[in-house]
Amino acid sequence: MSVRLAITTFVFSCSLLVFGSAAAQNIVLILSDDQGWTGSSVQMDSRVPASVSDLYLTPNLERLAAEGMRFSNAYAPAPNCSPTRMSIQTGKTAARLGATDIIDVVPNDQGAAGLPGFFANFYVNKPLLVPLPISDIPDEEVTIAEFLKQHDPDFATGHFGKWHMGGGSPDRHGYDAHHGITTNSPGMMGMPDPKRTAEVTDDGLAFIEEQAAAQRPFLAQFSYYAVHTPVLAMPETIDRFRQMDSRGHTNTFYAAMTEELDAGVGRILDRLDDLGIADDTYVIFTSDNGGEIGGGVTNNSPLAKGKTHVWEGGIRVPLFVRGPGIAAGSESHVPAIGYDFFATIADWVGATIPLPDNQDGGSLHEVLTNGGFGTVERGTEALIWYYGAYRNGKHVAPQAAMRKDNYKLVWELDSQRTYLFDLDGDLRETNDLSRFSPEIADAMHNELKSYLEGVGTKIPTINPDYDPSQDPGLLSVTGVN
Amino acid sequence: MSVRLAITTFVFSCSLLVFGSAAAQNIVLILSDDQGWTGSSVQMDSRVPASVSDLYLTPNLERLAAEGMRFSNAYAPAPNCSPTRMSIQTGKTAARLGATDIIDVVPNDQGAAGLPGFFANFYVNKPLLVPLPISDIPDEEVTIAEFLKQHDPDFATGHFGKWHMGGGSPDRHGYDAHHGITTNSPGMMGMPDPKRTAEVTDDGLAFIEEQAAAQRPFLAQFSYYAVHTPVLAMPETIDRFRQMDSRGHTNTFYAAMTEELDAGVGRILDRLDDLGIADDTYVIFTSDNGGEIGGGVTNNSPLAKGKTHVWEGGIRVPLFVRGPGIAAGSESHVPAIGYDFFATIADWVGATIPLPDNQDGGSLHEVLTNGGFGTVERGTEALIWYYGAYRNGKHVAPQAAMRKDNYKLVWELDSQRTYLFDLDGDLRETNDLSRFSPEIADAMHNELKSYLEGVGTKIPTINPDYDPSQDPGLLSVTGVN
Repeated sequence: MSVRLAITTFVFSCSLLVFGSAAAQNIVLILSDDQGWTGSSVQMDSRVPASVSDLYLTPNLERLAAEGMRFSNAYAPAPNCSPTRMSIQTGKTAARLGATDIIDVVPNDQGAAGLPGFFANFYVNKPLLVPLPISDIPDEEVTIAEFLKQHDPDFATGHFGKWHMGGGSPDRHGYDAHHGITTNSPGMMGMPDPKRTAEVTDDGLAFIEEQAAAQRPFLAQFSYYAVHTPVLAMPETIDRFRQMDSRGHTNTFYAAMTEELDAGVGRILDRLDDLGIADDTYVIFTSDNGGEIGGGVTNNSPLAKGKTHVWEGGIRVPLFVRGPGIAAGSESHVPAIGYDFFATIADWVGATIPLPDNQDGGSLHEVLTNGGFGTVERGTEALIWYYGAYRNGKHVAPQAAMRKDNYKLVWELDSQRTYLFDLDGDLRETNDLSRFSPEIADAMHNELKSYLEGVGTKIPTINPDYDPSQDPGLLSVTGVN
Repeated sequence: MSVRLAITTFVFSCSLLVFGSAAAQNIVLILSDDQGWTGSSVQMDSRVPASVSDLYLTPNLERLAAEGMRFSNAYAPAPNCSPTRMSIQTGKTAARLGATDIIDVVPNDQGAAGLPGFFANFYVNKPLLVPLPISDIPDEEVTIAEFLKQHDPDFATGHFGKWHMGGGSPDRHGYDAHHGITTNSPGMMGMPDPKRTAEVTDDGLAFIEEQAAAQRPFLAQFSYYAVHTPVLAMPETIDRFRQMDSRGHTNTFYAAMTEELDAGVGRILDRLDDLGIADDTYVIFTSDNGGEIGGGVTNNSPLAKGKTHVWEGGIRVPLFVRGPGIAAGSESHVPAIGYDFFATIADWVGATIPLPDNQDGGSLHEVLTNGGFGTVERGTEALIWYYGAYRNGKHVAPQAAMRKDNYKLVWELDSQRTYLFDLDGDLRETNDLSRFSPEIADAMHNELKSYLEGVGTKIPTINPDYDPSQDPGLLSVTGVN
């Protein structure tokens, strides 16, 4: 498969005319794939010694943290790929968008990519009747790119790497330069650039150089295929990690893949320096969900569970933000979530046009410029997660969660069980407080249900015809399935 | 710490007199520590391709499986150490014995080893008031060794390696030769025998040689410290695994430790050959519980969870049995459990004295000599697990489980939640059937509760004074704990 680099609708002369030599306000949004909270060599919470990998080496993320702010309580909007990406692009929860699973589960005959196994295993003959997710980012949703162009028609917008939001083409959603409607498949292409980290970086940097030369403000999104499976890295990188002694993280291949991802980040930071635009550029680095814990890939310890779970291991992710007014080496314990980036970026560029309707997120600007303290005024006060799918091999059934202050409620829709955790006192989510504080649990559960109903989430209902013996998602030893 | 080798009460002349040159009936019981179902290079279920490690190499366990019977549905009697060992020794469930946790949690002032952290973290100020386990194997319980001596006073009995049952001394419980009341600590002694695998093997083989020379029947128990944490192995073994490419199991240190354990097994099998007694000796190999999944040690995929959980990953273990009348390379899907060994061994030696009262297990002899088919007539029909303790870091609270035919019920005593699984159709325990088959779930739950009440299990009760902010088992980020 060839990766297409489409650069369209640039109007260089106009751009030069408008901005002259004035400093532009640029945004670099780097998204890693499946990188957990402890998936780097940056300790994500200064109070939690275990919040760092004992194997992975990410000197460039260390640099980014040292030059900006790290968020100890940062979240992906969803525990998996497409929903998080759509949420970041729109400032809305995955639930509000109907992005309840990756787009690929929607069958071909309904117009989507259609990974056959996912639909057959996780949507047919399941205990609950599970509505399908949307298969495309809707045209009517305003993306960060579209908003920036509304704010300033000369804003250059590029998206490089994994898209995984369908929707025809990224340029239909505001992106001038892009790699097309890529999913996971380009990230498994073999040597010498096994996760295409170099290519994503090259193309994104070429885009940045063009805008810098033109002194045109830009949004450059680097959406890396790493560190999603398959676990691939260059042999020489793997060989370095083979000699390491670690006990918490032990997958040297994954460590190598992580280091190669980090090298891409380093090239971006270096190029911003070389171009003399580092001081005019905000850099966000985060991940689309927690680490994959199946098959020995990694673990998110001390957090519970991983990718596709709304438990902390599936949604708490690294977040570093660097830019004008953000203190170097600072740390914030204020909860932040990917759907806050929209309003934050709007603040950064000084947008005077209103945000799109129904924003769930809020701007992190106050927290970022106030040493990590302050509040985030969100469209929806609580943080909300909804993942409406089965993944039997990962012990996942439809689930939702809400965080308010230090409390988190987890709602398993299949078993109709709820859990209440105090994340300050019980980071690992081991101690269900719903029995001790039923008033808090009930209030949060009701608020969560009200929110989901309010945004039109199609809550799964019991499947009266469910036949466990014919459930293809189960691992049977009897040969029935 | 020096390991004591005490060999007492041997009466060689008598032994020779009784047995003359007739073939003796010997038993070698090898117990590994924390080795999960997929913790070897033997595929444990011919129908489940994933039931084998993709990294660990255990050629000697492969040999044992090829020369005897493997059990795909074999269980440890408990998800952790002391309870399983006491259960194996007595033929009774851990619940009946009151062995609801490892002995070390009992504080010093109550006469036990007293690992301080365990009592403080997991028994004080917890959501449930949790009774302490017994700290010693009771004198009134008849062990396998004592039973064999009742059957034949000349039976030589030796226990080498980890004991972890307290009780004063192994010789107080029928063992002539032993290493004392060892726990985990000898298994962390550094090079050149980091897990003391060589020493345990050496001493056990010396014991066997003495009995063989005397033509005296023997029970030799090799209770290895491997593959419990800390993960230790010889550098040259580790170096071999560093070059391996694996994706499911990735901890090369653990792989090395496993291989060194396997080498011990190989030395035992070879020595039985050399001594010409292999045909007169039954060999059992199993583990005391599933693999440790915390901290990147290993995983039990495709099984759920691991050590200290009554889910399959914590209790389903390798089991190989070789000996007279057992077909080479055979496989049984009949459920077997460690507390069956007592009655099985009684069958093997042709004991005519009655088994001790209240045996929960039954003899595997029919299944072993019938190509893996048949039934096990147990004192208690269902398989029963009860683990009455917290381990917050492992997401464990008091729990119980029961297996009948292909159904398994899991009962979480803290949350009062039950789960019902069809293990044939859902090996991974992902699909809770309690909503679909409430009559089965309720019947099994009632049977489980009745059993526990019948054997006098002290079921934990709600702690009215529980204060989560002072629960030392929780990982707090606020500095309160």
